[in-house]
This record gives sequence, structure tokens and C-alpha cells, in this order.
Amino acid sequence: MQFPSPVSIQWIADLIKAELIGNANGQATGINEIHKVEPGDLVFVDHPKYYDKCIQSAASFIIINTKNVMVPEGKALLVVENPFEAYSAIVKHFRPFEPATKMISDSAVIDPSTVVYPNVFVGHHVTIGKNCVIHSGAQILDHCVIGDNVIIQSGTVIGSDAFYYNTKKDREVWYKRMISCGRVVIEDNVEIGANCTIDRGVSHDTVIGKGTKMDNLIHIGHDTVVGKNCLFAAQVGIAGATTIEDGVILWGQVGVSKTLTIGKNAVVYAQSGVPSSLEGGKTYFGSPVDEASTKIKEIVWVKRIPELWAKVMGK
Amino acid sequence: MQFPSPVSIQWIADLIKAELIGNANGQATGINEIHKVEPGDLVFVDHPKYYDKCIQSAASFIIINTKNVMVPEGKALLVVENPFEAYSAIVKHFRPFEPATKMISDSAVIDPSTVVYPNVFVGHHVTIGKNCVIHSGAQILDHCVIGDNVIIQSGTVIGSDAFYYNTKKDREVWYKRMISCGRVVIEDNVEIGANCTIDRGVSHDTVIGKGTKMDNLIHIGHDTVVGKNCLFAAQVGIAGATTIEDGVILWGQVGVSKTLTIGKNAVVYAQSGVPSSLEGGKTYFGSPVDEASTKIKEIVWVKRIPELWAKVMGK
Amino acid sequence: MQFPSPVSIQWIADLIKAELIGNANGQATGINEIHKVEPGDLVFVDHPKYYDKCIQSAASFIIINTKNVMVPEGKALLVVENPFEAYSAIVKHFRPFEPATKMISDSAVIDPSTVVYPNVFVGHHVTIGKNCVIHSGAQILDHCVIGDNVIIQSGTVIGSDAFYYNTKKDREVWYKRMISCGRVVIEDNVEIGANCTIDRGVSHDTVIGKGTKMDNLIHIGHDTVVGKNCLFAAQVGIAGATTIEDGVILWGQVGVSKTLTIGKNAVVYAQSGVPSSLEGGKTYFGSPVDEASTKIKEIVWVKRIPELWAKVMGK
Repeated sequence: MQFPSPVSIQWIADLIKAELIGNANGQATGINEIHKVEPGDLVFVDHPKYYDKCIQSAASFIIINTKNVMVPEGKALLVVENPFEAYSAIVKHFRPFEPATKMISDSAVIDPSTVVYPNVFVGHHVTIGKNCVIHSGAQILDHCVIGDNVIIQSGTVIGSDAFYYNTKKDREVWYKRMISCGRVVIEDNVEIGANCTIDRGVSHDTVIGKGTKMDNLIHIGHDTVVGKNCLFAAQVGIAGATTIEDGVILWGQVGVSKTLTIGKNAVVYAQSGVPSSLEGGKTYFGSPVDEASTKIKEIVWVKRIPELWAKVMGK
Repeated sequence: MQFPSPVSIQWIADLIKAELIGNANGQATGINEIHKVEPGDLVFVDHPKYYDKCIQSAASFIIINTKNVMVPEGKALLVVENPFEAYSAIVKHFRPFEPATKMISDSAVIDPSTVVYPNVFVGHHVTIGKNCVIHSGAQILDHCVIGDNVIIQSGTVIGSDAFYYNTKKDREVWYKRMISCGRVVIEDNVEIGANCTIDRGVSHDTVIGKGTKMDNLIHIGHDTVVGKNCLFAAQVGIAGATTIEDGVILWGQVGVSKTLTIGKNAVVYAQSGVPSSLEGGKTYFGSPVDEASTKIKEIVWVKRIPELWAKVMGK
Repeated sequence: MQFPSPVSIQWIADLIKAELIGNANGQATGINEIHKVEPGDLVFVDHPKYYDKCIQSAASFIIINTKNVMVPEGKALLVVENPFEAYSAIVKHFRPFEPATKMISDSAVIDPSTVVYPNVFVGHHVTIGKNCVIHSGAQILDHCVIGDNVIIQSGTVIGSDAFYYNTKKDREVWYKRMISCGRVVIEDNVEIGANCTIDRGVSHDTVIGKGTKMDNLIHIGHDTVVGKNCLFAAQVGIAGATTIEDGVILWGQVGVSKTLTIGKNAVVYAQSGVPSSLEGGKTYFGSPVDEASTKIKEIVWVKRIPELWAKVMGK
């Protein structure tokens, strides 16, 4: 999430009651998660395992629960006991919870050429471009941005909250929600089927690139970036913070794990599972996936085991 | 799609500015996709690879982008530069886009014995029979036909548009939507779970046969025909233009590919993937599926590889 | 389902026109399915294969279609020609079908601290606790119970009917619905993603335990009991009457079959299929699942078959 305008880091430190160490004169421009941080951003870390990664990231300001780390030149630490709660406090300040009271929010900006069916909910600060059709039962939630010539079919949810939790198994409630302050950005000529769910970014944007088409019952996780002219068949699921490059085709029921990249024009056959990054331009199959030609040969090899057995074991 | 009444092929040729070659006196009765054409139908083809298939199909009138083909006796070619756009123009003429303005369309015909919950959307020209229950949040879209004693649970979408595109990778937008002008026809005694999606036919009907029961979060593609007394468990997905014969049982998360047939009384175990037609009366498992008994033996054989290896490799 | 107050078994016998054999002075406290029966309950059985199981179950009163069985001390048989219809008659008496006419039922009890978005349906006799957020397009159906600090995201259906049928293939309609009279009970601090479906119990409760978090497009079957602090990723499906113990993690697209138990703190990797009970504290993978370490070794072994083949076959 970018702040509406740069904010003095001292002001942020006061807000979250942090001890400020390092560059106390900086201006924070936003807050982001570690996969998406840019200079000017705040980030938070509460586990020693990730201290280094966060301090060395592009983020300028690190909310952290230790003083025993080096502060790189020009950066600042904001030391607090509970960085997760500090993150939540900042997000709540800049994105206060505003429950809706109307089906179409007064703050939504919808081009008059766009058709919005009955039974559609449009939240606060939503923008919808020209010549779109938003079918009955779609829910377009706060802050989402929809381009021109976009079709959203019935029952689809744009901007549901990220499935992203702070985990501590010594609490009674192990999982505490990280408040989602990112958006969903849907570019021009995208078409999305019925009863899909596209989660907003935790603190960045989930993006669906120009000309991409999705079938029904598809799930796209938080902060995932989908390229242009992709084609996803029904019941595909993509976890959070993943990158799908341009022209990728995912057939039905494919599952894709988090924080990986599928390269340009890759094709993944139905029901495959993608646990790690895939090179572009190739065709894949299996759970876990392999190149399709390799996987198809394996299926044939398995059928030959009895012949091998007979030869070796003499029966 | 059938036209409201037969239409002179010369009139159609004028509408789409086509050169008419062959039988100029014919009457077109409808327009359909290649898998479903009948005598009297228009069909379109824009790729040389499929010229023959379309010309030799049951269709009487072929919208095509070449003159260099033979016209069979009694048929006609409608030659245009862009058959896909011509198809779209015909569909738009006979099924003009009519955005809804009411939750229950005035043109919907709903038997008074049927219960329609609050928060249900019913589109134009929908018919719903006797003793149905349409639960809250269901969306019954334009032109769909629902028989007697049908239950549709909450959040289910009947009649979403087909996931069916005209593809050209030398355009900026690779995929252009084929306008869906087919219907969904749900026969008597069908019950459909919550948050399912049943796409309308592109130009024919998607049919759910009498007495079939479906669990939640199921996807049925365009133009697919499901027989009588089938049972589909949750999260099953069936692609377009497929035929599921009577009495077929698909367990949870089964995926079925397009334009294939699953024979009468076949049973497919959970999470299986069906890439091609299956004979009826048998039980299947795996992704891709095999007969269940074969697949189960393979699972055991794989577990014996280490023993084989030790014997052969001497370790 | 528990009755509002104990009911004389003679009164029940009269309602369903049953011949009462055995303890005619008992009081029935409820009606339940065989997996969930307790003393005082009615249960029904219509197939000789299950006579013994039902008669020997905890149920006190057995609706049955034979007299040729022994009645255990203190129990009673209610002999009818069609036990399934008798069950339906009892359920209809105590839970008459009350179609809703309002978006929020007058009989729903919602704590004033809870936020209910526009476009939410809340059925009869629903209870919602403190500090919940029910997002737009959610459907909370009759009799469901939601605790405190619960978040239900958009489009999710709580309390859809069970996918549970009486099957007879010599009828024209093979599958007849068992009327669901159970509830969904969602405990405190549970969060449920968008477009999920949680079916009510057939005659008992579906329960989601305290602190459990679910992503989008998840299906939970009837009478399933999920423990505390579980984590289910998107598109997981769990069939009916299954028990998921505390702290279980199911990754994306996992499928779990019916009437089994997954033990405490088990972890099941993405796309796995669980056909039978799993011990707690272990990590699983595959369809069907095995321990993950075993399954991962098998994947490597399959890749070695060509080497074995070459050695044995000499090519």
C-alpha cells in the first residue's frame, strides 16, 4: 500500500510507539510485504530467521523486535515488541474499516457506458472503466480497479481478503489475520467467469493483465501478478505472490503454489500441480509437474514394471 | 440457436455482407457450432484445417473466408473476410444484449408453486416449472429453462457465458469471445448444490438430465449434455461439449475434458482426470484415468521398484 | 436433530403409522443418522445389510421395514413399509419448510457489534455473535450458529443442504433427497474465505472449530467436524461425516473422503486425495495419499525404471 503522501518516519514511530534507530529524517511512502518492497517502504519482521532478508531488502524502514542488528546506511529500524501489531496499527490508520451500507458505494466511479446488473455489490473507492459488463451477483470490493471492456460474470468476488496469517502456536488462536490493504487491478479486455475469487494484495496489488480470460470457479491469491493474454480453464487455483507471465495457458483444475514464476507462453495440462517455478515456452503435466513428454513416458514405464518383474523374478 | 422462424439465406447474406455461392433459395433455421449442427443450420469456419469438416457437416450454410472449395449439392457458402465477426453479427441480431434492470425479469415465467428466495436473480425469458425451490443468491440467467421439482441451492449460477474464444495470436488481444446464444435446460427432479456454475451453450443447449443430482462448487461447461440419474460429488468440473450418459457417477474433484463421452453407468473415482471417452459400466481411477483395477495394481507395482532395483543392481 | 422437548415414542409411531414393538413407553429426544446417534434418538434403516448396525447402535428407537429382528432390552422398533418416508415425515413435522421472504429474517439474532454488509441473506433462527463481519453476497441459511469474531467473506454459503440421498435404482428417479435438519455451528475466531460452501448436517451439526481459517472456494460436507486452529488452503473439499482434528493443515485442492478421521496436527500437501483415516502428527502427499517422504521417494523410483529396463533387457 502506498500512503496518500509521504509520511515522516518519526510520525510513524510515534504512532506505533517504536524506538527509532538510524535515519530519523526519512519519509515513508508506503508499507509492503517482503516480496514487493520498494525504496521508501516500511516492512515488518518478527522472526530472527528473516531479520537479514528484511534489513537487506529494498525497504527503507524496518519494523523489528530487536536492536541487535546493524542498520544499513540511510535506513531506519522501528523497534517494537510486536511488529505484527505495529503493522496492523499502521494499516488501520491509513485504511480504516468502512463497512458499506449501500449496494453501490457513493465513492465508486463507474463509467456510464458500463452495464452493472441488479444484485451487484460495488464497494468504496472502486473504479470501473468503459464498456464493462458486471453480471448479477458479482461483488466488487473496496479499492479495486477495473479497466475497459472487462466482463465479470455472475457470483465472482473481486477483492476478497488475503489468506495470510501471523502464526504463533503458543497462543490460543494460532493464526492472526494480516489486514489486507492492497487492491485488485484488472486491466483492459479481461474476462472473468462465474463464481471466481480474486484476493486483494496484502499490501501490494493483485494484477490480472490485459486480455487475459478466465473460466469459472478460479481462485487467484493475494499479490499474484498475471500477465497479458493468459487463458485459465475452470477451477484453476493460484496461491499468493506468484507471477504468471504473458500468454500462459493453465488447463482445468491446475494448482499453482505461492511465490513462484511461470514463464511466458508455458502450457500446463489439466489437474497438474506446480510447486516451483517453470521455464516459459514449454508444456507441463503431472502433480508435481514435469515436462509433459517426460511425464507421459513415465506413465508408460510404470505399465512395464510387471514385465520387468517377471523377467527378473522369473515369474 | 434456433431462429424464431426460418430466415432466407439471401437475407442472412445481406446482413453479413457475404457473397452467396450455391443454393441461394434456402431457408436457414438456426446457427450452431460444428459439434451440434443440424440440416438447416448455419455454421462458420475461418481456418483451412477445418474447411472440409464444416462443409461436410450436417450444416446447410457455411460462413467461410474462401471461395476455393467445392459446394455440396443443395448447400450454400457465405463468403466473407471474417467469418467470426459474421457469426457475431448474426447472433447479436437475433439475441440483442438486453441488460436486466430488475431482480426478477418481467419476461420470466415462474410457476406459482415454485419458491424463489430473496436475493435470487432471474433473467429475461427464463422459464421455471412447478414445485421448484431456488435458494438465496442463485442467479438464473437469460433464456434458461428449469423443469419441475428442481432444487437450486444458494449462490449457484445457471447460464453463465461459455468459455469459448476465437484465437489469433497476431492480434494485441489474442482471445475474442464467441457470444453465447445457447441455453441451459434443466430437466425435472434435478438438484444442484451451492455455488455451482453451469454455462449456457455457445449456440446449442447445455442439458442436465432428469433426476441428476449435483453437489457444491461444480462446473459444467457449455453445450455439455448430462444424462438422467447421474450423481456428481463436490468440485467436479466438466469442460464443454461433452456427453455424460445416464447413471454416471463422478466422485469429488473429478475433471472431465471437452467433446468426449462417458458411457452409461460408468463410475469415476475422486480426483480422476478424464482426457478421452470412457466405456460405460466400468469403474475408473487416476489422472489420467485408467480402469480402477489397473490403476490400483500400478500403485502397488510402483512400491515394488526398490525390490526390483536391489535384485538387479545387487544393492 | 434434537426435538424441542422429549416426545412420546407412541406419538411418533402414530405420526408415521408404525407398528410399535418393544418399549412403548419411551421418550424420543431427537432423530439422527447412524454415525451420530445417541441414546434417546430415533434412527432409520431400510436395508437388511444395515439392520444389525442400527439395532446395536446407541439409538433407542429404530424405524425399520421388518419385524424379523430381535429388539434389545429397553429399545423399540417402529415398523413401517418405507422407513425413508417415515424419517422425512418426522423431519418435516419438526422442521416445516419456511421459505424466507426477507433478506434478514425477523427470527435471526445478530449481535449489534457485528457488521452485516448489504446483499447478505440471513435465514430463520440464525444466531450471529459479537464482532463478526459478514461480507456482501454471503448466505447464512436457517438455524446456523456463528460465534464471536468470525469473518465470512463474500459469496460464501453457510448451511446449504447435505448431498445425501436415498438410492433405489428400480425407481424412475434413483436418488431421493434426505431432508437436512442439522445445522452449521461456527465457533469463535473462525475465518472463512469467499465463495465457500459449508453444508448443514443431515440430522446432526457440521462444526468448524475455534480459530480455524479457510481460504476461498472450499467445500465442507454435511456433519463434518473440523477441530480448532486448522488451516485449509483454497479449493479444499471435505466430504460428509468426516472428523478433522485440531491443528490439521490441508494445502490447496486437497480432497478428503467421507466418514474418516485426520489426526491432530497432520499436514496434507496440495492436491492430495485422502481416501481413509490418517494418523496425526505426520505429513502426507499423493492421490491416494501416502506419507510424504514415501511418496517423494516413489516419484524418484519411477524415474529410474528406464535404467532398470536397460540393465535387465540389455537395451
